[in-house]
Amino acid sequence: MSDLLHRFRVLWDEIAPVGRDADSGGYLRYALAEPELRLRAWFREHADARGMPVTEDGNGNLFATWGDPDAGDAVLTGSHFDSVPHGGAYDGPLGIVSALLAVDELRARDRKPLRPIIVAAFVEEEGARFGVPCLGSRLLTGEIAVDRAAGLRDAAGVSFAEALGDRPAGARTDLLSRVAAFVELHVEQGRALAGTDAPVAVASAIWPHGRWRFEVRGEGNHAGTTRMGDRRDPMLTYAFTVLAANKEARLRDAHATVGRVSVQPNATNAVPSRVTGWLDARAAEEETLRGLVDAVAAKATERARRDGTELTVTQESATPLVAFDGGLADRLARLLDAPVLPTGAGHDAGVLAAHLPTAMLFVRNPTGVSHSPAESATDADCAAGVTALARVLEELACR
Amino acid sequence: MSDLLHRFRVLWDEIAPVGRDADSGGYLRYALAEPELRLRAWFREHADARGMPVTEDGNGNLFATWGDPDAGDAVLTGSHFDSVPHGGAYDGPLGIVSALLAVDELRARDRKPLRPIIVAAFVEEEGARFGVPCLGSRLLTGEIAVDRAAGLRDAAGVSFAEALGDRPAGARTDLLSRVAAFVELHVEQGRALAGTDAPVAVASAIWPHGRWRFEVRGEGNHAGTTRMGDRRDPMLTYAFTVLAANKEARLRDAHATVGRVSVQPNATNAVPSRVTGWLDARAAEEETLRGLVDAVAAKATERARRDGTELTVTQESATPLVAFDGGLADRLARLLDAPVLPTGAGHDAGVLAAHLPTAMLFVRNPTGVSHSPAESATDADCAAGVTALARVLEELACR
Repeated sequence: MSDLLHRFRVLWDEIAPVGRDADSGGYLRYALAEPELRLRAWFREHADARGMPVTEDGNGNLFATWGDPDAGDAVLTGSHFDSVPHGGAYDGPLGIVSALLAVDELRARDRKPLRPIIVAAFVEEEGARFGVPCLGSRLLTGEIAVDRAAGLRDAAGVSFAEALGDRPAGARTDLLSRVAAFVELHVEQGRALAGTDAPVAVASAIWPHGRWRFEVRGEGNHAGTTRMGDRRDPMLTYAFTVLAANKEARLRDAHATVGRVSVQPNATNAVPSRVTGWLDARAAEEETLRGLVDAVAAKATERARRDGTELTVTQESATPLVAFDGGLADRLARLLDAPVLPTGAGHDAGVLAAHLPTAMLFVRNPTGVSHSPAESATDADCAAGVTALARVLEELACR
Repeated sequence: MSDLLHRFRVLWDEIAPVGRDADSGGYLRYALAEPELRLRAWFREHADARGMPVTEDGNGNLFATWGDPDAGDAVLTGSHFDSVPHGGAYDGPLGIVSALLAVDELRARDRKPLRPIIVAAFVEEEGARFGVPCLGSRLLTGEIAVDRAAGLRDAAGVSFAEALGDRPAGARTDLLSRVAAFVELHVEQGRALAGTDAPVAVASAIWPHGRWRFEVRGEGNHAGTTRMGDRRDPMLTYAFTVLAANKEARLRDAHATVGRVSVQPNATNAVPSRVTGWLDARAAEEETLRGLVDAVAAKATERARRDGTELTVTQESATPLVAFDGGLADRLARLLDAPVLPTGAGHDAGVLAAHLPTAMLFVRNPTGVSHSPAESATDADCAAGVTALARVLEELACR
């Protein structure tokens, strides 16, 4: 086993048991709650061991700095520790572990940071606890109001401000103005690299995406006695919408998912009175996305007419196309001889891209599965990711 | 307003506010819990006022007797007070209120019970609190084991035995052997009488029915990044099954409903790993029901193959055809000049039918809606129901 492979495995094994659910094999690492707090302590220990002072930005984001913290043009890297419910091991932590190991690589080769290298652990990237994804990076950049963020509550009623122990600080332009670039390494959440020779890719863009709530109202009734012709069953309209979304996405090479549903009263022997489904839709271009959602809504509306139900479609969120810094992406792709790929997933890098030159590196995922216990990457590919990130940091901070 | 209409309205107004949810307008009357306990106290008061001694059978069922309680060949009538969540006002209570008013009618006309008339309030008919419908009548007839019934728990963990204050008594053949017939009056749960001249019908049979669990397992994944062609999405198989069940039921003049679904992890941005739907299916004949469920399962299996998901179909319950006593039904239909109808709903009468000559009377429901706040019957039709029940009791107990 190569030295780097070994060092990766040692660090990875330290965090692997933290917050893992024995039944599902997935992770329950919610921001600022117990297993994630242990990972934050682990981060501080490893930063200390490397002589990297750790600061907190008043929003829950941690920064460990190698080099003169007051020097400008810093290079920021890192990712997040928190997971979706029963999520995978790699989404987030791989970017932090790789950043610490990349620092070790540069040190082993006696490189010095002419500009500081800062390893970040962002808070609440998944939004699994407080409902807003990329909460830490949104606060840092001022893209969410402090009052709104402070008042977000988890399922138990605890507010973000209470979990943080204070009202969040909000936009920290003083910190951001000292950063020249952000590079986030992340496990690939798809199979574009699977079966290719490339263990690492550079991101070109994040697809525009959004969430739409499809609420279908019908007439609650007795399942045993109500004739089929007398029903106004919203479950039928919902089911048709699910299949229409799948078909319309395939026609457009886009992504559409209905992964969440809520039923009133959700009883075996009752025709439901209301069924609500959430459509997650993404596409390479805004126009394709709009066309997709319009087509699904039109088909669902027509079906509701036939079912005698009432459909309302509400857009709950919309994120426009995020194009990462083209010059930086090209430079890193040339440096690493790596392919350039778009992605359908949101990231802290997507938030920071509006404020800083930002890039992402993706590490190959053999199955493409993510947000699931089956998410994976080989140790060899993870080591290749560390090597690539070290080369990027050397290029941006040590020359 | 006729005298009977007025007397019906007075009694109905006494119970109308008990357990009504102000938001939905529906009822939350769960067996042996607060609003239902008030209705049981109300029942005792009204029985006392009529000089009808009330006994409890050790299973939670109440019996108020008019006539010599030790005489044989009693005529049992009545229904239940408990509701489904946010259920209607009539399902259950109409049969008890009508029975008390029918006794008043017979008394006003100076009829005497040659054989005792017993008005019953059965416990937990809907199964909304402890999960097993017709629990009271199943215990009384010995159709459920005492240990199993005692250990059934509500959502808060309270067992049926705890709610009852004692271990249930189970089969009471000593009581049943003294009963010659059971007649349950119930609001119609369909629209067979709507638009006809008949306010009251006599039941012929309860359709055979059952519940089947369709569990679809796929691969949990990221909604944003997983290409449509790489997905194994159980929501698609579920949606297809919902539409297939509807279509197959229509083809056979049967009833099929998927009103309950459970999704793992049920997140907007995740392709689910598992979707479970419950099929409620009913038909006039067992063979039709079997053909319906087989057809739905075959279509779902074929779709699962295309979706790359795994389907397992499990029968959770099955109730064969209940044919009510044909001689009794014919006799009552002639007496009342009423039509004879089958029904798709289970009732305490369906349980008792295996032990006693049993009949049901249905009171017209203009919309056919039931198990919903919109369930209704006109006061005039309710009064017609009381008149019909009084004639039946007179025929069976006073001649």
